[in-house]
Amino acid sequence: MVLDKINSPIDLKGLSIGELETLAEEMRSYLLSVLSKHPGHFAPNFGTVELAIAVHTVFNTPHDKLIWDIGHQAYPHKLLTGRLDSFETLRQTDGISGFLSRDESKFDVFGAGHSSTSIAAALGIAAARDVNGDDFKVVAIIGDGGLTGGMALEGLNAAGDFKKDLLVILNDNQMSISPTIGAISKHFHKLISSRGYNRLRTGAKELITKSPFKSISSDAKALAQKIEASLKPGTLFEEFGFRYFGPLDGNDLESLIPVLTGIRELSGPMLVHVVTKKGKGYLPAEEDPVKFYSVSGQFDVKTGISQRPASAIPKYTDVFSRTLIKEAKHDSRIIGVTAAMLGGTGLDKFAEVYPDRCFDIGLAEQCAVTFAAGMATEGLKPVVAIYSTFLQRGYDQVLHDVCIQNLPVVFALDRAGLVGADGPTHHGVFDIAYLRSIPNMIVMAPKDENELQHMLKTALSYEIGPIALRYPRGTGVGVKLEDEPTPLAIGKAEICCEGEDLLIVAIGNRVYPALEAAQTLTETGVETTVVNARFVKPLDASLIVDLAKSIGKVITVEDGVVMGGFGSAILELLAAEAISDVQVRNLGIPDRFIEHGDVKTLQERYEYDTEAIIRAGVALAVRS
Amino acid sequence: MVLDKINSPIDLKGLSIGELETLAEEMRSYLLSVLSKHPGHFAPNFGTVELAIAVHTVFNTPHDKLIWDIGHQAYPHKLLTGRLDSFETLRQTDGISGFLSRDESKFDVFGAGHSSTSIAAALGIAAARDVNGDDFKVVAIIGDGGLTGGMALEGLNAAGDFKKDLLVILNDNQMSISPTIGAISKHFHKLISSRGYNRLRTGAKELITKSPFKSISSDAKALAQKIEASLKPGTLFEEFGFRYFGPLDGNDLESLIPVLTGIRELSGPMLVHVVTKKGKGYLPAEEDPVKFYSVSGQFDVKTGISQRPASAIPKYTDVFSRTLIKEAKHDSRIIGVTAAMLGGTGLDKFAEVYPDRCFDIGLAEQCAVTFAAGMATEGLKPVVAIYSTFLQRGYDQVLHDVCIQNLPVVFALDRAGLVGADGPTHHGVFDIAYLRSIPNMIVMAPKDENELQHMLKTALSYEIGPIALRYPRGTGVGVKLEDEPTPLAIGKAEICCEGEDLLIVAIGNRVYPALEAAQTLTETGVETTVVNARFVKPLDASLIVDLAKSIGKVITVEDGVVMGGFGSAILELLAAEAISDVQVRNLGIPDRFIEHGDVKTLQERYEYDTEAIIRAGVALAVRS
Repeated sequence: MVLDKINSPIDLKGLSIGELETLAEEMRSYLLSVLSKHPGHFAPNFGTVELAIAVHTVFNTPHDKLIWDIGHQAYPHKLLTGRLDSFETLRQTDGISGFLSRDESKFDVFGAGHSSTSIAAALGIAAARDVNGDDFKVVAIIGDGGLTGGMALEGLNAAGDFKKDLLVILNDNQMSISPTIGAISKHFHKLISSRGYNRLRTGAKELITKSPFKSISSDAKALAQKIEASLKPGTLFEEFGFRYFGPLDGNDLESLIPVLTGIRELSGPMLVHVVTKKGKGYLPAEEDPVKFYSVSGQFDVKTGISQRPASAIPKYTDVFSRTLIKEAKHDSRIIGVTAAMLGGTGLDKFAEVYPDRCFDIGLAEQCAVTFAAGMATEGLKPVVAIYSTFLQRGYDQVLHDVCIQNLPVVFALDRAGLVGADGPTHHGVFDIAYLRSIPNMIVMAPKDENELQHMLKTALSYEIGPIALRYPRGTGVGVKLEDEPTPLAIGKAEICCEGEDLLIVAIGNRVYPALEAAQTLTETGVETTVVNARFVKPLDASLIVDLAKSIGKVITVEDGVVMGGFGSAILELLAAEAISDVQVRNLGIPDRFIEHGDVKTLQERYEYDTEAIIRAGVALAVRS
Repeated sequence: MVLDKINSPIDLKGLSIGELETLAEEMRSYLLSVLSKHPGHFAPNFGTVELAIAVHTVFNTPHDKLIWDIGHQAYPHKLLTGRLDSFETLRQTDGISGFLSRDESKFDVFGAGHSSTSIAAALGIAAARDVNGDDFKVVAIIGDGGLTGGMALEGLNAAGDFKKDLLVILNDNQMSISPTIGAISKHFHKLISSRGYNRLRTGAKELITKSPFKSISSDAKALAQKIEASLKPGTLFEEFGFRYFGPLDGNDLESLIPVLTGIRELSGPMLVHVVTKKGKGYLPAEEDPVKFYSVSGQFDVKTGISQRPASAIPKYTDVFSRTLIKEAKHDSRIIGVTAAMLGGTGLDKFAEVYPDRCFDIGLAEQCAVTFAAGMATEGLKPVVAIYSTFLQRGYDQVLHDVCIQNLPVVFALDRAGLVGADGPTHHGVFDIAYLRSIPNMIVMAPKDENELQHMLKTALSYEIGPIALRYPRGTGVGVKLEDEPTPLAIGKAEICCEGEDLLIVAIGNRVYPALEAAQTLTETGVETTVVNARFVKPLDASLIVDLAKSIGKVITVEDGVVMGGFGSAILELLAAEAISDVQVRNLGIPDRFIEHGDVKTLQERYEYDTEAIIRAGVALAVRS
């Protein structure tokens, strides 16, 4: 095994191209063995094996700084940088992260879970290097999807102007979470198809292997320049002030290593366009890279067929998708809008039925939100389906373009609350806090998948302003789905059970744990009322105030940050109504970033699961 | 007067080019007469007179949809669309807005105050048109600065792909608030200098005026195509999937009208590049367009010299700037970072002293924040100076790139709180709510300009994570500035005066009004304690809890939204400490967007000025 001997990139330095190719094979086998048992991102990592090997061979990491955009394609990087032994704990509770993490390794220069940040970070590092008078190279690796995000383009624009020494590697596999959208992506296609990619694979490959530039030679700089010159004229990147090299076969170490070696000798803003094959080396993934974008673990290695039993309980996403399709039949104004999350949000199925009424704006949440605002001005009912964590990118657009103008845009925030294995960059725990402080916005969260139907119907029936619903990742509670979704009264809560000693006001997926807690509490003599708030905003003020006054002890519980969250809204309400001598305890995500791990374990660890509610209830009940 | 007869764009239709040129002159005179008395944006509006006339002449507004990016260059548009009579109330309390507003006019299709939104909105409107089967044109007008913002580039990328019928007019005056930064801007320069702009002004202008295309002819389409063809080959925009026309002289109606008439007959994504002269027609503004970007009113029309007496009290911005320069002398790690707000944030003066340590990233808050995060990983101390309202654009970057990684980046939020005449898009009232719910973030607000010095010093001395200070627009309180800024203890509040009946916990610019209120209250028998909280996060928990417990009646007051704001933090603290039977009243911005107007008037209207604090204190004191 070559892989066993690689404790750090320094161990790559003496290896021949042949040995590195063997290493690549071993890494793929190992990745396959782990990912067929444990969930993780799959196809992106199978595409970047050679790229990781080449970059760590050519550059002197961690002295040279390597920044992976997003980081979900950086498993090969992890294997080469001292995390082979811990790799089987990937994404598990207290195991290593599925993304890069500065806390995890000095080779993880800049962590990320959201896309398109790498060029800005790399430019900052390059500028800092020059201020400090240091001498190292800075390399950002970004996907073709990530490069279409606005902040990546801002980064190119600034980098092309600042003229810092900076290398951007465009890892072009023609796939973000969904197939990449946008004119820039078509530009990449054009570069590949018309500008000598095949020539490079044959003619220029010959140039590399047969010329004096053979292998990792000292003439590599001349080689790189020759490749640059052979592929004129200008591209988009040259207009941005970058020197452009490529396209190269990013799965071919014989091309990658000499060209990168040559480019390492050059300076200024440079971009190398490498084309990698998603799922490379594993046929089922090569054939269906969207299915294999990430895997949930436990599939048959030979066939690629999942061995996990399908749940009989539908996912929240599925219920959202089905309800939207059903409602769109009666209301031709309903439009689906997303930002490179067609499959993840269930809008792919909507698009199958209503192809002309579904818009995937690409990896560009800002544009997606304001696009929807524009549609709303024309009387349509856009439903913007974006994961809670990614809508953070559109915060200003939600506020400035939608809410100030009070436009009737529906926001469907999937993956709200803790999401589990993806960890701190992906937990959707800030949305309640950041949405509820924006005027005109209505915010709902369903207790189960049946209520999700009703809330979507409520949102679609609400004509006078913006409205958001947030719902968790994964399967529903398993309740019966009523045939017809029915609009709920805006700002009306639901009393689930009644008792005189304690009031629990729960929102979203915390309603059932609250009910379980109430049962235990009541059995132990603490008679408990549970209110399903349904609305974060507006609150059912009179109901909550009356109950709080008469009961006097209140627990709030939410799957979101406590600071500024739903519980705070209850505190504000009581203060505004001049109600004191009510004791309130807020349960939810504490003021820290939550690590990745099993959701139930984390909810227990951060004390907002059923048991924690019971403990809080008991403590409150005995308080005078 | 031609202008007097223009009640709506329909009145433009029969006019000759000569009459339209007269109209342009009259509009400039009128704008000058108003803006020399009342504050407003100046140079941008003097540049767009002919553009507004041409677009409203050629297109059939409001049936055709016209979207101005930002809208601060749309005064000529306002004059042509029925707001001549109300124009003298511009930006004044209860007067017309300085930006576009859907509430103000049906010609204001999409409002904005932040840049770079117009293409996304226009694309949404164009897509809605096609879904609805409507037939109208959609025109977005965006500046060269705005076009470098990430979401504008996202918009281009999506629009070039969707192939909707959409016209983008690039209003290129080589100026955003600061001179435009970035490679794209250089690309515009290149287009102008190398690709026949002068040819168009002479040769092609001749083509327009002497050919059969004379004036607004039916051959305009052929003319437009001829101009397009004459200026090949490809530009950045063509790589984005747009047809490119230009550059045209955007102050020349003889060119603009026939070319736009021709383009109106074409379809698909198109971009017309027009070059306008900032301040056009008013010599002092043409000569110093940065100074005349906006004017504060009351200047001598002949000389352009301001007639407002300079205040002896320094602005917060000036104190920030001076302190930063002073501290940078001792600490070479201090770096200034901004996003097209060099002058507005006072970093221009820092850049004069430390040109190599100051980075203006251009109109790109997202990139600026993550750029700073990158710098912090290299041991530098970046100070990101961005207005509170614009940092909303970088919300996800603050959270995901800075705070998750706990990087020591300093955020200096200028223009926090109500900003006055710029209105709802510009009030910096959400920052306390959106920043304090992010883990690892420290948030401060100074009571006066002297405390600002100390807080900046505090931030620069804080090595272990992100820290923000927010301070108001305009002049300070007028206190003496101590010679040496001194770091404050993190999370320590200041007791300003003591009394046993009422506790006022104030933050930032609300501390002095709280003190004034306390004096009045104490005189009327309500002995009042005032705490200057200094820190929104972390709160001085023990001090506030002890005082709240012993006094029992608390008022919080802040220049920010009450929902999720500073007052909520106090409520959360009391709840977490299991303190009930304390009566709390939160004063601040209510849950609505606040109109433009005089700040003092608005603070009175929304009941968080001195008088409102007194009223709340009296009401609380008499409550049992």
